[in-house]
Amino acid sequence: MLTALLLAAAAPTPAALAPSEIVAAAPAADWVAIAPADVLVMELAPLAGPSTRSGPRRVFIQLMPPPFSQGWIGNIRTLAVARWWDGTSINRVQDNYVVQWGDANAKAKAKKLPSGLAVVPESDYATPYRPPFAERPKDVGRTAYIPDIYVDNVGATGTFSGWPLGFALEEAWPVHCYGMVGVGRDMPPDTGSGAELYAVIGHAPRHLDRNIALVGRVIEGIEHLSSLPRGTGALGFYEKAEERTPIVSIRIASALPAAEQPRFEYLSTESASFAAYADARANRRDAFFIQPAGGAEICNIPVPVRRAR
Amino acid sequence: MLTALLLAAAAPTPAALAPSEIVAAAPAADWVAIAPADVLVMELAPLAGPSTRSGPRRVFIQLMPPPFSQGWIGNIRTLAVARWWDGTSINRVQDNYVVQWGDANAKAKAKKLPSGLAVVPESDYATPYRPPFAERPKDVGRTAYIPDIYVDNVGATGTFSGWPLGFALEEAWPVHCYGMVGVGRDMPPDTGSGAELYAVIGHAPRHLDRNIALVGRVIEGIEHLSSLPRGTGALGFYEKAEERTPIVSIRIASALPAAEQPRFEYLSTESASFAAYADARANRRDAFFIQPAGGAEICNIPVPVRRAR
Repeated sequence: MLTALLLAAAAPTPAALAPSEIVAAAPAADWVAIAPADVLVMELAPLAGPSTRSGPRRVFIQLMPPPFSQGWIGNIRTLAVARWWDGTSINRVQDNYVVQWGDANAKAKAKKLPSGLAVVPESDYATPYRPPFAERPKDVGRTAYIPDIYVDNVGATGTFSGWPLGFALEEAWPVHCYGMVGVGRDMPPDTGSGAELYAVIGHAPRHLDRNIALVGRVIEGIEHLSSLPRGTGALGFYEKAEERTPIVSIRIASALPAAEQPRFEYLSTESASFAAYADARANRRDAFFIQPAGGAEICNIPVPVRRAR
Repeated sequence: MLTALLLAAAAPTPAALAPSEIVAAAPAADWVAIAPADVLVMELAPLAGPSTRSGPRRVFIQLMPPPFSQGWIGNIRTLAVARWWDGTSINRVQDNYVVQWGDANAKAKAKKLPSGLAVVPESDYATPYRPPFAERPKDVGRTAYIPDIYVDNVGATGTFSGWPLGFALEEAWPVHCYGMVGVGRDMPPDTGSGAELYAVIGHAPRHLDRNIALVGRVIEGIEHLSSLPRGTGALGFYEKAEERTPIVSIRIASALPAAEQPRFEYLSTESASFAAYADARANRRDAFFIQPAGGAEICNIPVPVRRAR
């Protein structure tokens, strides 16, 4: 298709499809259902006072599939079932960085963690290649842009089963794109339990890759996090308790009544539609553009997610 | 310094400085004053209602130096002197993308533009190498990480006189990092007058490079833009007029009374301090980190800016 466009360049050609148009045209078979058992539903307290933004504030978080970060994700399931986050709060909003939530007084250890949480080793920040995962990436080390492996100046990156990943010769790891959700921790060798979580709300902080566990991504409602007032304390922590946004509840969606379970789907990163979408993100040829970039970083090719049709 | 650290790796070593510590330790000579004549001061209407965030909302925008985007920047100076933006509003807030402001009813053309605005050609989205600019970048095409030229999968990038730039063999252009300010436009060949402006509030939309004029960057107060409620219309435009944030005024700082003129400075991108800072951003070795990334994209090495001391 690219070749055809180049050959036709001398004649007037209609503008190519925009990435959003490619996604809209993707056949149903290219979409993959996200199981409610893999979705967290976070309900924030409604905005106080008169506002054009009153109403429920729900944030939906998809958890990563095996083999990634499963120790922490197991803990997060335990915490959600124990309703551990109910009554906690969003405690930190640092501009162009992260929103963070959990027990605002975690240092006091007054709020007891449920029993049975795993202590996950640092080695689990990355995953060795092993089936079925090892069957996919074959092109680490290629420098040309191809749909599923991109080499940027942080290293090789790509997509697998709907997720953005970094790659080295024998391992892979999730990358800190906008909206990704990770596990707060203390100084190493602490790796965090999963009780303290954050979401990226700025330019991808790729220096955190392999230094913190990533467990999922916000797939709907991130505006309820990214538009919160920034904290004025160090690292964007709120200085006054009343600035914190209360968390009403965090549930695994499959634990909700069937009618309330959200149904999402993502565009298969192994589909032809995704390849065309990624190519269009890297080379915009729709009517607004005069100069295709010729490349795109992994975090500028967000995997499309939508409510199931 | 890097070599010394590597040689010492077998012995216990103290953690290296964090990027913020390198910036804090930079000598005064490494900081460059930003002239008030190159700063726009945007005053937004105070937040309505009781809020922990009441008080003035001022956004400071540094304009780019020659030879970049000077046609549009000349227009912007004319518009500020004419007080054209006073009483306009912020009309669009699209999550992980941009905040946009200007005349909410621009299509009606009821609010007349000042006379004398230039129509800038598309060719000015990039700048040919010419003195003094041409004296700097000599390393385009190198693929290794070096402090002032980075090659990512969008192309060669680097810094010059305090700004993030993209490079090709014979030209350079500003890049769409977080906080950069650009000129809204209609379909090509329109290039925009400068009356409609936007700031990047999400992951760097590098596909816009060389497709839209960049004229500056927010150097203080971006939280007043990035934390605004997201618009629910197409492209994040607000659907109701009352959702828009009124702009009280936009002034060139040098037109303010002397005592009110903000004094900023940036860390010279040609300084040893900046080189050390950029290296530390790409290779975090401070105590929190266990795995240096080995590289960083240009937009993850933001040029430090502070109030003058």
